[in-house]
Amino acid sequence: MASPPTKALNELSATEIVKRIAAGEITAEQVVAGCLERIAARESVVHAFANVDAKLALKAARELDRGPRRGALHGVPIGIKDVIDTADLPTEMGSPIYRGHRPTCDAASVALLRAAGAIILGKTVTCEFAGMTAGPTTNPHNPARTPGGSSSGSGAAVADFMLAAALGTQTGGSVLRPAAYCGVIGYKPTFGAFNRAGLKFAAESLDTIGLLARTLDDVALITSVLIGGKAAAASLGAAPRIGLCRTPLWDTAQAETKHAVEDAAARLAKAAAALRDVTLPADFAGLKTAARETINNYERSKSMAAEWASRAAEISPKLSRCIKLGMEMPHEEYLGAIALGESCRARLPDVFEGFDVLLAPCVQGEAPLGLDSTGDPGFQAIWTILHVPAMSLPTHRGPNGLPVGIQLVGHRYDDQRLFACARWIWERLAC
Amino acid sequence: MASPPTKALNELSATEIVKRIAAGEITAEQVVAGCLERIAARESVVHAFANVDAKLALKAARELDRGPRRGALHGVPIGIKDVIDTADLPTEMGSPIYRGHRPTCDAASVALLRAAGAIILGKTVTCEFAGMTAGPTTNPHNPARTPGGSSSGSGAAVADFMLAAALGTQTGGSVLRPAAYCGVIGYKPTFGAFNRAGLKFAAESLDTIGLLARTLDDVALITSVLIGGKAAAASLGAAPRIGLCRTPLWDTAQAETKHAVEDAAARLAKAAAALRDVTLPADFAGLKTAARETINNYERSKSMAAEWASRAAEISPKLSRCIKLGMEMPHEEYLGAIALGESCRARLPDVFEGFDVLLAPCVQGEAPLGLDSTGDPGFQAIWTILHVPAMSLPTHRGPNGLPVGIQLVGHRYDDQRLFACARWIWERLAC
Repeated sequence: MASPPTKALNELSATEIVKRIAAGEITAEQVVAGCLERIAARESVVHAFANVDAKLALKAARELDRGPRRGALHGVPIGIKDVIDTADLPTEMGSPIYRGHRPTCDAASVALLRAAGAIILGKTVTCEFAGMTAGPTTNPHNPARTPGGSSSGSGAAVADFMLAAALGTQTGGSVLRPAAYCGVIGYKPTFGAFNRAGLKFAAESLDTIGLLARTLDDVALITSVLIGGKAAAASLGAAPRIGLCRTPLWDTAQAETKHAVEDAAARLAKAAAALRDVTLPADFAGLKTAARETINNYERSKSMAAEWASRAAEISPKLSRCIKLGMEMPHEEYLGAIALGESCRARLPDVFEGFDVLLAPCVQGEAPLGLDSTGDPGFQAIWTILHVPAMSLPTHRGPNGLPVGIQLVGHRYDDQRLFACARWIWERLAC
Repeated sequence: MASPPTKALNELSATEIVKRIAAGEITAEQVVAGCLERIAARESVVHAFANVDAKLALKAARELDRGPRRGALHGVPIGIKDVIDTADLPTEMGSPIYRGHRPTCDAASVALLRAAGAIILGKTVTCEFAGMTAGPTTNPHNPARTPGGSSSGSGAAVADFMLAAALGTQTGGSVLRPAAYCGVIGYKPTFGAFNRAGLKFAAESLDTIGLLARTLDDVALITSVLIGGKAAAASLGAAPRIGLCRTPLWDTAQAETKHAVEDAAARLAKAAAALRDVTLPADFAGLKTAARETINNYERSKSMAAEWASRAAEISPKLSRCIKLGMEMPHEEYLGAIALGESCRARLPDVFEGFDVLLAPCVQGEAPLGLDSTGDPGFQAIWTILHVPAMSLPTHRGPNGLPVGIQLVGHRYDDQRLFACARWIWERLAC
């Protein structure tokens, strides 16, 4: 993520694009052309996009260039995960069932981005219906490795400088895992913060729209547009109080993740952060199963009821299995998992007592070899079901030189404080 | 709601339809034909439907008649509020923007009903985007009065024996209010219980799909299909412990509502229910404004971002005002309302301590005169934001002979107990 001395246009951050267009130094059309060039050069290896319409994007850019400043994202090319509706590009859900599908209307999030002057450059590859059946995307650092999922294309496109930022969605770990594997910043806000109208649901009590970008400024800028307010607290006042939370899944982490988390903790403590270990109550250990097996399968079997009724043969075996398990699940089992989530959420104030932010593992290690699996969502999913805001920062590298992220977890509904902590931490850990 | 000695086919409950078709006494086609006849006779006055496709419904019925039993709702005609997607009927949202709009795919709830053998007889009139701008529907008891809203057509069609049951949605009071005004049973489950894939959002942290029907058996039957489990607890064991909760809005109730609630309380106490007054904590008084003004307007302004960007001129002045207020609202104000909802929900166990169910006012009084306003959502909205399950029972009549409902409110996620209490109470109060 080090800035090259002279950045190509496709390497500019959203914040830089907006400033330089406002200063008359560059045009939106030039930025889009730069991104399209990068895509042309790299897409045959990375496969980040389900659909790109170069003509449409260039036309949108020229319209912006002709008019006055439209908003906070004037001229910024953004990618949209292909489970989020777009009126002018197909929305194919990573499934043959939706091949060529054209929604009538933009999703709320897309409409808000466009109204602020963003250019929707393309639809990024998603796992089938934002689940676990991978698309063709490869990791830009090494095409033999997964980019993570299910926001695979969003992670790869942003990491490979094909565009400045992208929307993703997280039901288990689908924003933070590809962000960590691809080496960019991932942000899953507090559950519900970004409006979900026009999103195809996977499991609606977990589904959260999030962002992938290369700078914290960009994450804050785009967030402010989507919420219609300030994303980040101005300043923390003092060094953040950080809880080091290894989580009950610590033993599943590889050496590089353990090192990343502990090295980050040590360096932050040295930098004067108040840092203490925090242990989650024992029953939090059940959150992964509750989120990934119980709630995910049950709600999946409902949200996919229409496709299951008429097009079951076109659903992958992996997803079919989830749906069947969900359909056969006793309703009491589902309510039990919901109750565990509620109960753990209710005790979060105790967990966070005295802390501004938690530092936790984000992924087990470097992006695994192979493209069939997008990796394990455990370390991300336990926070998703808690509805807390979470961010992954690409602070470390693993034994093969691939990115390894750390995860920062904030207070529910206090995303502003998470942003301020993330900035403080990132300034001290970024290579 | 008294059963006539020989019921016409359109007057049968869903439960009766299923039994009589299984017994070979009637066919699904006959039931649909009976409902269509009723619609033909009454629709010019009631205007309950946005779309009915008689041929399609009869064809579906004949297909069911030819095959084996498809499921728990084999042959039951159901209406779908016109903000819920249907693949074979337009979904017009009560808005010119969506005139003739054809979704690709059934909503999850619709697909689950169909898979169980239900026949989607038509789309019922909704207020514009499930808001407060009324459609053409009249109250079947008196066409000069509102049927309530926003599930106006669902309430009127069920009350007028045009079909057995209908789906509605409640963001403020849009299921229970039309149920009460039209004199049928309304059920808003615990938030999230019925899958919302394919529902057009109004305010997504409040929007709840619910049911309107004429019998408790029917509500339980359809619920069991939508959740894939048992709707009602087998039995309470003992008489229910009932909390009489006048709510901070009590003074806004008209005499007929005060009488209905207090008369119900007196008769239930005589019938051996343990009945005590319950007072909500003082800050619960802020829930109506939080739900109706703050959260509703903020989330509205996001969920309608696409329509607002491209078709604002076709949005009614009333809804435009909500959207504008939401767009201009400081984000902190929204978070404050969300925090109040969270805080009150967290204290519900104290409110419900020692009670199986709360008895509360449902509407201010009889359906008001005029069709411009669908009535005040206050008494319903304070429970909607609390995410608790609620049911309206048409137990009383007002000074003009129109229905007046009472409201029963259950423990969150314990809809089964609410059903059991409602049955106990209904058996003792039904005229």
